[in-house]
Amino acid sequence: MGVFENEETVALPIHEVFALSCRVLTGAGLSTAHAEAVARALTAGERDECASHGLYRLPGCVMTMRSGKMSLDAEPVIEDVSPALVRADAGHAYSLLAFERAAPLLVEKAKAVGVAALVINNCFHFSALWPEIEHLTGMGVAALAMTPSHSWVAPAGGKRGLLGTNPIAFGWPRPGAQPYVFDFATSAVARGDMSLHDIAGKPIPEGWGVDAEGRPTTSARAALDGAMLTFGGHKGSALSTMIELMAGPLIGDLTSRESMAFDDGTKAAPMHGELILAFDPAIMGGGDPAANAARAEALFSAFADQGARLPSERRYAARARSLERGVRTPKVLYDQILALGL
Amino acid sequence: MGVFENEETVALPIHEVFALSCRVLTGAGLSTAHAEAVARALTAGERDECASHGLYRLPGCVMTMRSGKMSLDAEPVIEDVSPALVRADAGHAYSLLAFERAAPLLVEKAKAVGVAALVINNCFHFSALWPEIEHLTGMGVAALAMTPSHSWVAPAGGKRGLLGTNPIAFGWPRPGAQPYVFDFATSAVARGDMSLHDIAGKPIPEGWGVDAEGRPTTSARAALDGAMLTFGGHKGSALSTMIELMAGPLIGDLTSRESMAFDDGTKAAPMHGELILAFDPAIMGGGDPAANAARAEALFSAFADQGARLPSERRYAARARSLERGVRTPKVLYDQILALGL
Repeated sequence: MGVFENEETVALPIHEVFALSCRVLTGAGLSTAHAEAVARALTAGERDECASHGLYRLPGCVMTMRSGKMSLDAEPVIEDVSPALVRADAGHAYSLLAFERAAPLLVEKAKAVGVAALVINNCFHFSALWPEIEHLTGMGVAALAMTPSHSWVAPAGGKRGLLGTNPIAFGWPRPGAQPYVFDFATSAVARGDMSLHDIAGKPIPEGWGVDAEGRPTTSARAALDGAMLTFGGHKGSALSTMIELMAGPLIGDLTSRESMAFDDGTKAAPMHGELILAFDPAIMGGGDPAANAARAEALFSAFADQGARLPSERRYAARARSLERGVRTPKVLYDQILALGL
Repeated sequence: MGVFENEETVALPIHEVFALSCRVLTGAGLSTAHAEAVARALTAGERDECASHGLYRLPGCVMTMRSGKMSLDAEPVIEDVSPALVRADAGHAYSLLAFERAAPLLVEKAKAVGVAALVINNCFHFSALWPEIEHLTGMGVAALAMTPSHSWVAPAGGKRGLLGTNPIAFGWPRPGAQPYVFDFATSAVARGDMSLHDIAGKPIPEGWGVDAEGRPTTSARAALDGAMLTFGGHKGSALSTMIELMAGPLIGDLTSRESMAFDDGTKAAPMHGELILAFDPAIMGGGDPAANAARAEALFSAFADQGARLPSERRYAARARSLERGVRTPKVLYDQILALGL
């Protein structure tokens, strides 16, 4: 993130990031199955130097667990709804275990009929979507995931929070190479990045948010108290609204505003639904899977030919470094995590 | 579009827009079934005051028909691939008839299993996606459509055309109200808008394109000769790349660059594929469809409450005007259409 550049850090090998996360989460009462699923996501974030989705999230995870609204041990209930639809009721626990448990059936369906959907309902959600996308591309399917959040973002032409930061992520499997994966918030910036700027006392660029009166602001605090803006003007706003509808009413779950009302000021992670679509290139592509894969590779090569990077390249480079050398976590965060009570 | 504001216009009732389009298209050799499907799309565009997808397209349609690459009468071949997948081979004819013929089976599948895909292959494509989306929302499903085009758009961090203008459109059915529909190019602006600025000799805003050397430009001509840019920086570029992959290699069809190579300088409409996903709110939503529909309506109401417009409101207002009073088409365009030879 750059905001901790001048701070003291603690070196941790990757396996210790996972072990530390598990200790803190189970110590705070989370079941082992849920703790390991959450720890896998936090470790992936820390490993890929996505600071706002790494250990930074651990205190918030524990706070969410203590909100009184969350199940710490619900077993996901997986329903085989149709040849193209899997539903996973997370039972007001974290989303990640439900995803892991339902993913094999999602992929099985996609590989049988071409396209399939996984609906996760009633889940607390804090994680980046790319670990789930990579999980699916690793099983040979293309995947698209989206989720609402809390109503922090004003629609184009509006001035009050209504939409969530509503991330969308997509992945394309590449035999013999890291998958093509993007994961972005449809807000101009992720809420986590805004919070990091607030914590660090750094100004935010114009276009990230408006204050409580709807005026443009460069204060992260004022924007956190007012409303964030979407990326890309009315197009980003439309895309965010689509996510609100597809991962909300379409799947029988809460909109970002309803999720925020459910939270009722406890500032826990949002509780809502998630929609994940999986596509089998062999069935969707018809005739010649190898030729179609080669078409995609030619596209990726053409990025490199003109000096453009693919979305995940920075993350994969960080991953390679972290797997070799471990990660460096801000000491202030590390101490805060230890103080959560092991 | 505003660029014809000071020009002489011709008044046409809506039915004459359709009849004129049919006469021109069949006169140029298109089969009646294809001509009517194309004319329905052109009429919808003219009616909704989407000038760049109305009669303005007719001369280009005829030019494409004369390119020698297009079938003027191919009957779409519809394949029932799986419980969730329909494939329509357009046989190198226009896409619209294939869509119309395959849409009932797509919706039937979505209503049976929750989510279904329509893949259209080998189609010439020039039309906006929202008429197809409205067609599907009118049948009670939510829908998402995307297509590549020609490689006019540079990826983020790049300087040469590689991605298409790659439109994406989404619709949500609203009982008793016009559907929520958006349709936008992932380029900063539609190629048609760029062409209209070029024709009118108007400068383009910064951010729309770069010249042949990769430098920012406000000349529509220079950007048409160079590369367009995506909306929303790296996020828009990622979304455009997703469309390139999903409506290209995933469905066994051409990328925008391959489509442009196929065109080989004839400047016909792009020939490639199209992907349309349909979602049944009743199955996807589980329990209570009315409650889920009400959730969506509450979201839309909240737009209005803060003075924000929904994406299609301007188009629906134009439609109401046009249905009552007819449309006004620039005389220079009308004369050009008549000169196509009836």
